Amino acid sequence: MPVVPGERIGIIAGSGDFPFEIASSIKRAGNDVFIVGLRGFAERGVRLFPHVYADMLDPHCVLDALRKRDIRKVVLAGGVARPGPMALFSIYTFFRNREELRRIVSGGDDRILRGVVRLFNEEGFEVLGVDQVAPDLLAPLGSLGSVQMNDESKPDIELGLNCLATMGQFDFGQAVVVGGGRVLAIEGPEGTDAMLRRVVELQKNRRVSFEKPCAILVKASKLHQDRRVDLPAIGPKTVQSAVKAGLIGIAVAAHDVILVEKARLLRDADRSGIFVAGVKA
Amino acid sequence: MPVVPGERIGIIAGSGDFPFEIASSIKRAGNDVFIVGLRGFAERGVRLFPHVYADMLDPHCVLDALRKRDIRKVVLAGGVARPGPMALFSIYTFFRNREELRRIVSGGDDRILRGVVRLFNEEGFEVLGVDQVAPDLLAPLGSLGSVQMNDESKPDIELGLNCLATMGQFDFGQAVVVGGGRVLAIEGPEGTDAMLRRVVELQKNRRVSFEKPCAILVKASKLHQDRRVDLPAIGPKTVQSAVKAGLIGIAVAAHDVILVEKARLLRDADRSGIFVAGVKA
Repeated sequence: MPVVPGERIGIIAGSGDFPFEIASSIKRAGNDVFIVGLRGFAERGVRLFPHVYADMLDPHCVLDALRKRDIRKVVLAGGVARPGPMALFSIYTFFRNREELRRIVSGGDDRILRGVVRLFNEEGFEVLGVDQVAPDLLAPLGSLGSVQMNDESKPDIELGLNCLATMGQFDFGQAVVVGGGRVLAIEGPEGTDAMLRRVVELQKNRRVSFEKPCAILVKASKLHQDRRVDLPAIGPKTVQSAVKAGLIGIAVAAHDVILVEKARLLRDADRSGIFVAGVKA
Repeated sequence: MPVVPGERIGIIAGSGDFPFEIASSIKRAGNDVFIVGLRGFAERGVRLFPHVYADMLDPHCVLDALRKRDIRKVVLAGGVARPGPMALFSIYTFFRNREELRRIVSGGDDRILRGVVRLFNEEGFEVLGVDQVAPDLLAPLGSLGSVQMNDESKPDIELGLNCLATMGQFDFGQAVVVGGGRVLAIEGPEGTDAMLRRVVELQKNRRVSFEKPCAILVKASKLHQDRRVDLPAIGPKTVQSAVKAGLIGIAVAAHDVILVEKARLLRDADRSGIFVAGVKA
């Protein structure tokens, strides 16, 4: 069920400024927000909005805070470290089926997040995606910065999108680096920044070399990715890593990838001379 | 054309002991060998066989040494560093089509090797694969060491083989690490050892965690891989890296992957308690 005009949306906020970007977007659209800041993760910007703090490992507290305010729709946003085995032990009592929790936690990111969504659903909440509550944070189609994408990059971007689409069946690969007609790296659980550091190494060790810079980061959501909790994102740090890796641009699937701190991201990209573009997946 | 009994086979030898393992295997089969050791790469074992030295960047010298001995069939074996741009410049004069060489050298490993094979072919030589001249160096089907593979590993190995088969279309992935029903890493141009170091990091940073060790290295040749020059291989170093990464075993496609220094490889695997098995791809 979509957001009803004037409705109050709950944001479960981990680290980073992204939860507040969502909050601002929701308010711009004329709706209301309430933030549950996860203790130890949520940043100070929480205080700019109505909020409480709660412990990630105490789901009762999170759910009660929402129920008390009659909030039924929530968005999950921001980073949280994966809890260690000891920390998880304390959360076990909350779950009806410990075996299931164990399976969830030892599974891929998708599985963990699907588990969290199911928990909210079972408790009567609806988990909305960023694309539903703050669609203006997603990359639109076309050039986003002032640097234009070259036509020569198009076959590589096609290759990257094709590779990502193919890898989705393995719950693997939210991003690839492509260049000169080849796939250079596929992102696994290590994340985009670690993959881009690998691309630095590949060139340093002459495992790959180019006549002229041509490598591109291509990012899109995975085939069965749950858009409610895990839309892919790029931010200023992605631009920084991309520049270090000698890339000439970043292509993201339009209406599918979040631009975190968009203004800074595009300013940094412009200054570094790399393109950022939303492309048809 | 297969090897004629008693025929003399040329081995173009890069670094490592593998060229000599091939030479020994060829002799065991009753055929003869002559080694062209690439200067700066070929190791001292060259001296155990009839040989000359030649410069990798001087194809004339390599080809003349073979022609002088009436050798028409060659095997390429051992490692060579990818030559730098300046070194390559000197080889340019040899090639009719510089643009083509440039394309070859900036392409994937497959393309470089296909280029070398084409060069030999154009000069009237036949390039044979290790599987043709020394099939006893390939992994057979079944358990190879004394540690047995557990039945629980079978679905993960299936997943790994399936993932490799799928990735072949992108000329990417000669190996994957799988465990607990997920793909953890796919090997790119960085090579198997670097991928296994990534798996160490994934666990250290808790990007992946397991209740009990279950991760497996799965290796097979790529879909369009040229079996004459680039059969995948595992050796003692692979075992060492696999143990460091906390893996429980190595599964290789039977009759498709070379076992380098097989005796030491299996002894090390047995001592470390990890399985090595040839599986049906």
